[in-house]
Amino acid sequence: MYKSEQLALSLKHLIESGAWKAHEKLPSLRQQAETSGFSLITVMNAYQELEAQGLIYSKEKLGYFIAEDPDSVEIAKTVILNEKIEINSTVFRYLKSIQSEQIVPFGIAFPDSQLLYSSKLMQTLAQRARHRLSYEQMPSLPPGNLELRKLIAQRYCMQGIPTDPSDIVITSGGLDALNLALQTLTKPGDYILLQETIFYGAWQATEHLGLKVITIPEHPEHGLDLEAFKNAVSNYPIKVCLLMLNSHNPIGFTVSDEIKLQLAKLLQEHQIYLIEDDVYEELYFDHKKPLSMKYFDQQNLVLHCSSFSKTLGAGFRIGWVYAGKFSESIQHLQLMSTLSVNSFIQSALADYLSHRYYEKHLKTLRNTLKRLKNQYYQYLSKKLPETCKVHYYPSGYFLWITLPEQINSNVLYHALLQQNIGIASGALFYRSEQTPHHLRINCSFELNQNTQNALDLLISAIIHFK
Amino acid sequence: MYKSEQLALSLKHLIESGAWKAHEKLPSLRQQAETSGFSLITVMNAYQELEAQGLIYSKEKLGYFIAEDPDSVEIAKTVILNEKIEINSTVFRYLKSIQSEQIVPFGIAFPDSQLLYSSKLMQTLAQRARHRLSYEQMPSLPPGNLELRKLIAQRYCMQGIPTDPSDIVITSGGLDALNLALQTLTKPGDYILLQETIFYGAWQATEHLGLKVITIPEHPEHGLDLEAFKNAVSNYPIKVCLLMLNSHNPIGFTVSDEIKLQLAKLLQEHQIYLIEDDVYEELYFDHKKPLSMKYFDQQNLVLHCSSFSKTLGAGFRIGWVYAGKFSESIQHLQLMSTLSVNSFIQSALADYLSHRYYEKHLKTLRNTLKRLKNQYYQYLSKKLPETCKVHYYPSGYFLWITLPEQINSNVLYHALLQQNIGIASGALFYRSEQTPHHLRINCSFELNQNTQNALDLLISAIIHFK
Repeated sequence: MYKSEQLALSLKHLIESGAWKAHEKLPSLRQQAETSGFSLITVMNAYQELEAQGLIYSKEKLGYFIAEDPDSVEIAKTVILNEKIEINSTVFRYLKSIQSEQIVPFGIAFPDSQLLYSSKLMQTLAQRARHRLSYEQMPSLPPGNLELRKLIAQRYCMQGIPTDPSDIVITSGGLDALNLALQTLTKPGDYILLQETIFYGAWQATEHLGLKVITIPEHPEHGLDLEAFKNAVSNYPIKVCLLMLNSHNPIGFTVSDEIKLQLAKLLQEHQIYLIEDDVYEELYFDHKKPLSMKYFDQQNLVLHCSSFSKTLGAGFRIGWVYAGKFSESIQHLQLMSTLSVNSFIQSALADYLSHRYYEKHLKTLRNTLKRLKNQYYQYLSKKLPETCKVHYYPSGYFLWITLPEQINSNVLYHALLQQNIGIASGALFYRSEQTPHHLRINCSFELNQNTQNALDLLISAIIHFK
Repeated sequence: MYKSEQLALSLKHLIESGAWKAHEKLPSLRQQAETSGFSLITVMNAYQELEAQGLIYSKEKLGYFIAEDPDSVEIAKTVILNEKIEINSTVFRYLKSIQSEQIVPFGIAFPDSQLLYSSKLMQTLAQRARHRLSYEQMPSLPPGNLELRKLIAQRYCMQGIPTDPSDIVITSGGLDALNLALQTLTKPGDYILLQETIFYGAWQATEHLGLKVITIPEHPEHGLDLEAFKNAVSNYPIKVCLLMLNSHNPIGFTVSDEIKLQLAKLLQEHQIYLIEDDVYEELYFDHKKPLSMKYFDQQNLVLHCSSFSKTLGAGFRIGWVYAGKFSESIQHLQLMSTLSVNSFIQSALADYLSHRYYEKHLKTLRNTLKRLKNQYYQYLSKKLPETCKVHYYPSGYFLWITLPEQINSNVLYHALLQQNIGIASGALFYRSEQTPHHLRINCSFELNQNTQNALDLLISAIIHFK
């Protein structure tokens, strides 16, 4: 038997006898070498053997820790452990069900396309198409069109986030960005922390990658519950978290700068990566764009993901990730999947963004969404029974509605679908033992005869729910 | 101990004692139940236990087989077993190196963009952009634009391959199609059969998915070596193969209908799936489009992947997979990665294809490529020393050159890069103990002062190689 095996075996006995608690730090390699008399290499090999056996785990720069005994995982009050998530088929059926043009699309995730695809942008596209000689010889390979990356980098800089175009990788939309970031930072079996209520795309991506999911509930006032977060990261070997902090989908809250700062400190302290889903960042109604976690990030722990899908058009499939030092690794993954992102659209977007049309378009878009969201909110909160709570936050275009617990939002969804009205049931966004009793309503559509009629039917269905 | 555990244990002893040879079929569940006296359920549980232990493996509809003892894998003469492929970094560096506009792009995989992006197509794009009201409300979700799928299905039907639009899934380019097909049919550790010399994207995708790779060498005359194929599928539990049979990249051959028919029979006999990479299918110089394996496919074993990247423009990133019964499973994967494919380009392509511009464009493209390939072939075969072999096949735009064995094509690639000439070294396309000594030359560029000069420098570098 090698010395390292010998050491591993005796440490194994110690661990199994309960000498250390779960998540307690093991002596450092150097300490262990000193106390045991073995060489550093031997100790390292022994630790690696124990890690391979799943008895301990390592955290970059922080050392080795005792793993959770799988037979004794305690589910803390604030966290839920999901070994395997199976939301994909539900989402698939749901997305199929609301695709028809007959359906009033309160259930979809995108703003009314009438508000996007601005005429200036489409003119730019048309001009690009007419100047075929301007195409590059090569399709735009990863990390994507340089001009576009420069303009995106500039927008970060304007918010006080130092950014170089080489930090940015263009992706095929925001979900591709999340997915590439997840693939870069995790391997199957890793622990990831998610919000309890979250965009279903994030659930699906974690399911697909075989990650172990810990969730924390939302804070009723602050959005993010720091205590629950602390509890989770102290009790589980979480490697990465995926969070939405600005104009959260589906609920709508935006987390304050103060809480973001605290979160950044916790990430640093525990050396946990954050994938920030920030696709609604531009849709604030106040005067100032909310800060991204990238602003508070001192150690390159945040991968910030965003896209033009909610501001210019989801049909373009152009997103990006602020990848920093992970840029090359993400590009590697792209070369094995989509190869590259549509170069025609990329160069047209770069053209469009360089003319400041975008700022003007965003201003109009924000004003319209603000007006519509207020109208919907007024209408719904007036007409719905008092047992319903319509959550209002000043950004985005979703209203999140808490129904009385006896109203099953899945049943409601199916009933309304019969009347050609699409809604998004809470079941798409959380996993719970309880009956789902939440709705997400997309209120980016002008209130006309048709939409108002649909709202009335929705309200009536809730009032007369049996 | 459960009865099934008891049965599993005794079967395990039998297997380990060598009662069966590797890949020999085990008695069927029913036979085993009869001989052992256990119930069908018990036998099934025992077999599944043995499968979980890696002692046996199952093949759909065919039953259970004895697994290869990992310590005694024999590498047959015609096959190579690669446990882990590491080509990605090489390809990454290579693609980066030839991206500069200063470089004469003999090394790239796409045809000269001057030949693509036809003016009719770009006009269609421009028109689409000007009619923003024609956009669909929703981005085109999987399986993609129905009109486009209808037109693609029609092209299959014209070749005598019965196809319904619902068989087709639009993807973000051809590589995405391959990757989705691979993900649908395999899980990590599965065996896949590849051609020895193959498009590097296929290597990368298999590496990324953790597949075990078996390769078969090319047949010098027929392209596909049926004997090697038989040998491989008889000796390894191959689940899926990924092959390029029309205008093979990089070599250029097209496999005959007779051999394709034989191959189809073998796939059926062994119940092996085929992912067919057929992105060059339209670039034949003869009168008739070569048949795809889909033509010979009786049992839905073939997933045919193609794209518009080599005919209309790689920058558009529109490909597809003839997925048949796997359509839904592929769409599931899309909902977890890219979500959907650019809907603007999809609808413009549908418009363009419906006007028969495409056929006209393809005719011109084929004629141009035929003329250029002949010119390059004449030039190179006249000026290169007799120790070099330039392989000519009547399709596509690649010339594959076998150099004398002492000429290391990697060294040649680096030397020519210094002179701003890009070439693709054989090392990108195969893994071999030998020094790589092949080149792939893209001959889709008009022979002018610049390209001819570059060809002369290439020839001179080969002649004076030290």
